[in-house]
Amino acid sequence: MENVALSAFTPNERILMGPGPSPVPQRVLRALAAPTLGHLDPQYLAIMDHTCAMLREVFRTKNALTFPVSGTGMAGMECIAVNLLERGDEAIVGVNGVFGTRMKDVMERCGATVHAVEATWGEVITPEQIAAALDAHPKAKLVAIVHAETSTGALQPLQGLAELIHARGALFVVDAVTSLGGHELRVDEWGIDAIYSGTQKCLSCPPGLAPVSFGDRALAVMDARKTKVQSWYLDVSMLRKYYTGGGGGGRVYHHTAPINMTYALHEALTIVLEEGLDARVERHAQMHRRLRAGLEAMGLSYIPKHSLHSLNCIGIPAGADDAKVRRRLLDEYGIEIGAGLGPMAGKAWRIGLMGHGATVRNVDLVLAALRTVLA
Amino acid sequence: MENVALSAFTPNERILMGPGPSPVPQRVLRALAAPTLGHLDPQYLAIMDHTCAMLREVFRTKNALTFPVSGTGMAGMECIAVNLLERGDEAIVGVNGVFGTRMKDVMERCGATVHAVEATWGEVITPEQIAAALDAHPKAKLVAIVHAETSTGALQPLQGLAELIHARGALFVVDAVTSLGGHELRVDEWGIDAIYSGTQKCLSCPPGLAPVSFGDRALAVMDARKTKVQSWYLDVSMLRKYYTGGGGGGRVYHHTAPINMTYALHEALTIVLEEGLDARVERHAQMHRRLRAGLEAMGLSYIPKHSLHSLNCIGIPAGADDAKVRRRLLDEYGIEIGAGLGPMAGKAWRIGLMGHGATVRNVDLVLAALRTVLA
Repeated sequence: MENVALSAFTPNERILMGPGPSPVPQRVLRALAAPTLGHLDPQYLAIMDHTCAMLREVFRTKNALTFPVSGTGMAGMECIAVNLLERGDEAIVGVNGVFGTRMKDVMERCGATVHAVEATWGEVITPEQIAAALDAHPKAKLVAIVHAETSTGALQPLQGLAELIHARGALFVVDAVTSLGGHELRVDEWGIDAIYSGTQKCLSCPPGLAPVSFGDRALAVMDARKTKVQSWYLDVSMLRKYYTGGGGGGRVYHHTAPINMTYALHEALTIVLEEGLDARVERHAQMHRRLRAGLEAMGLSYIPKHSLHSLNCIGIPAGADDAKVRRRLLDEYGIEIGAGLGPMAGKAWRIGLMGHGATVRNVDLVLAALRTVLA
Repeated sequence: MENVALSAFTPNERILMGPGPSPVPQRVLRALAAPTLGHLDPQYLAIMDHTCAMLREVFRTKNALTFPVSGTGMAGMECIAVNLLERGDEAIVGVNGVFGTRMKDVMERCGATVHAVEATWGEVITPEQIAAALDAHPKAKLVAIVHAETSTGALQPLQGLAELIHARGALFVVDAVTSLGGHELRVDEWGIDAIYSGTQKCLSCPPGLAPVSFGDRALAVMDARKTKVQSWYLDVSMLRKYYTGGGGGGRVYHHTAPINMTYALHEALTIVLEEGLDARVERHAQMHRRLRAGLEAMGLSYIPKHSLHSLNCIGIPAGADDAKVRRRLLDEYGIEIGAGLGPMAGKAWRIGLMGHGATVRNVDLVLAALRTVLA
């Protein structure tokens, strides 16, 4: 019976070059399958503490409150929103793609009035726009911006924004789902107060956890809340007692942590730190340049001016059948690339070069496959 | 380098006999480690659809809207609360342990006024209490009750409640975190309108997903909402488009599903259905009786009158050192049992017999270990 069931369950070995999940190293899959421990087992707590310590290194932060939220990247976004905002608050959000649009929606669901700072999809938000929004909305409690817009492939410059934002007494919030572990990102140096990411992009871990980090300014805002956080599951005033023993009273059970996913993240972060953050960021840059050169030589062009390295968003050439090309890549090569999202549906392809997937082998293969399929 | 890192990551092989997580079969761990697919890959969608179909069998329901929420059991609780309740609504919640207490808190965070129907911890709620609460609060939109109170070990009888609740036009909501796959549970036959569970109890899958199911009455209530669901991550009006293609517009991406956890749940459910639900429920009953006979022969006694089979809550005998006994079980036998929660801290132990862990071998081992450690 067992063998029948096993043979029926055989997911294909895809080459994941879409917007995530990215390819997961065998080492991480092996860690995922280690024996399940209890969530209060001393050994599990040690693994979790070490995972949080490695997350601090990858975020380049000293923030004590750095841990993986028990959900996917969108749970990380929601965790930051529900903890920092209360009904009646105001927020400023950069909207230049799907994830900025979602952030506005998520924050409005917290009862906040959200002022959008907009740019055309594929463009980035300028410091002047942020400054103008802060002038227009002096009560804004936070400014949130997407570092790596997975929907458009645009890389948002973040340096220098903190000064503008902190001068007005607001918090600087960043979505780093597609940049953490693949792009330069310095939480402390860049003055970021709260940040979230996902495991399934440049960390090359399966989806299911959302690393977050909160700095002292964010903690002070949370400590000064007048109302309970609307989400029990994501309430940091309780989560911090489990993850850091902080907030008084020592370590307290909150919910059953996703044990095996934590193992996988532990192994994925170990791999990131073995490679070294600088080397990893440089590898992503090199692979992006290699892919870009190949695509442009084929006459394909990038949509964003400031392109991410981890996600390459290109226009679908005239005459190519979007769905058919992606289907042929999947069926004939086992390669997954991403479709366009929202207004870019049918107009763009998104090629991910994330973490374990950002290799010469994958770049040259996807170029060869596209040459064949588009011929 | 690789081997060094691997050897540093070796979680102990515990025998998990606490309140969950329960022991995970090797087959499930192997499925967990299968290659990660994209969340829109046709093969992944097939695996997910099949997972939802098996969940329907295990819940004994025909509800189309049956799927695993991308979070642990508490995310399942929150998913039901945020989707069914709006600000200003009233709800009735049975409170006789930690999880009823939490449900009240979670629902209040939705802006609802929650009327608690209380019983002493370890006792169950009577139909007369529910009827009286419905008479006192005729506007109540739902009545929520915990089937298996993991904190006290009490099994709440559910049959007959639906008639009372539906007669008043309210929805019947059930927490089945510690009963699904281990206790008799018939969603359709018992008239349950919305139910949630967790993967890490009687399904013997690692923690990280929360199976939920919504019936037609619950769907009608959600469709009639005047306001957006306060949680974007848990908003069923969007989730149903991804999980079932329902609600119009076909299958639409919402968030990146926890791919590998879905594999594990798929395999865990396959095992449940291979054994058969009736046989599995009977095995849990037999193992409970075997454990109970052994514990009572040692002079230990059960706290709840109506005990769960999957969780056995016993009083700590006079003279025994709570923490030391649990630590010796862990260190000398590799056995994890649970401490008391809330008012039962220091007064109770909780011995789980869940799913893969409900075996003669485990029952006899924990009895032998307790005999030694308590001698």
